[in-house]
Amino acid sequence: MVKYSPLDLTFSALSDPTRRDILERLASGPATISELAHPFDISLPGLMKHVRILEEAHLVTTEKKGRTRECRLGSEQLDDAARWIETYRRHWERRLDRLGRYLEKQQGGRS
Amino acid sequence: MVKYSPLDLTFSALSDPTRRDILERLASGPATISELAHPFDISLPGLMKHVRILEEAHLVTTEKKGRTRECRLGSEQLDDAARWIETYRRHWERRLDRLGRYLEKQQGGRS
Repeated sequence: MVKYSPLDLTFSALSDPTRRDILERLASGPATISELAHPFDISLPGLMKHVRILEEAHLVTTEKKGRTRECRLGSEQLDDAARWIETYRRHWERRLDRLGRYLEKQQGGRS
Repeated sequence: MVKYSPLDLTFSALSDPTRRDILERLASGPATISELAHPFDISLPGLMKHVRILEEAHLVTTEKKGRTRECRLGSEQLDDAARWIETYRRHWERRLDRLGRYLEKQQGGRS
């Protein structure tokens, strides 16, 4: 059995444009499954599949309310994803800085 | 034919732990395919497949140098991913702030 890390699930969930749109919609407030489906050209089962993937990644929580299911933004799962990207970008920027300084020095030597 | 957006490719590439490890390794400097494969318990073709996916997402560039292929961190593709996450987090934090203020007010009314 393949064991997935939470970051695998987060990034995988974010790799689909409909799922990113769902998160953007939920950022302005909770919505039922059919409210979510409305702006998308997608079947209800299709939308529910996307919601389930977001739920597994803890990006969305759902709650049954009478005959509807309400969806909300989930916990702080995105923090880990943001933190990972930031650490990597810092490394990368430091390397670019070093390269910049090296090039400046080279140019200074020539003038 | 399914059309992928750059963000789809970025997040999809980041959803694998070996690919994230490759990026972390390359953050400290360029490496050949076999140097990259060394710390991982992975075949050379397996590693090359991961590198190709990172290359398609513009997270890595490769260059043939004699009999080896050198890999480096790619362009600023991660900036878009970071920007998307940040926008979404800001929305979400604003909602949490509003909820916090509402709860404080409720509590204030009760005391």
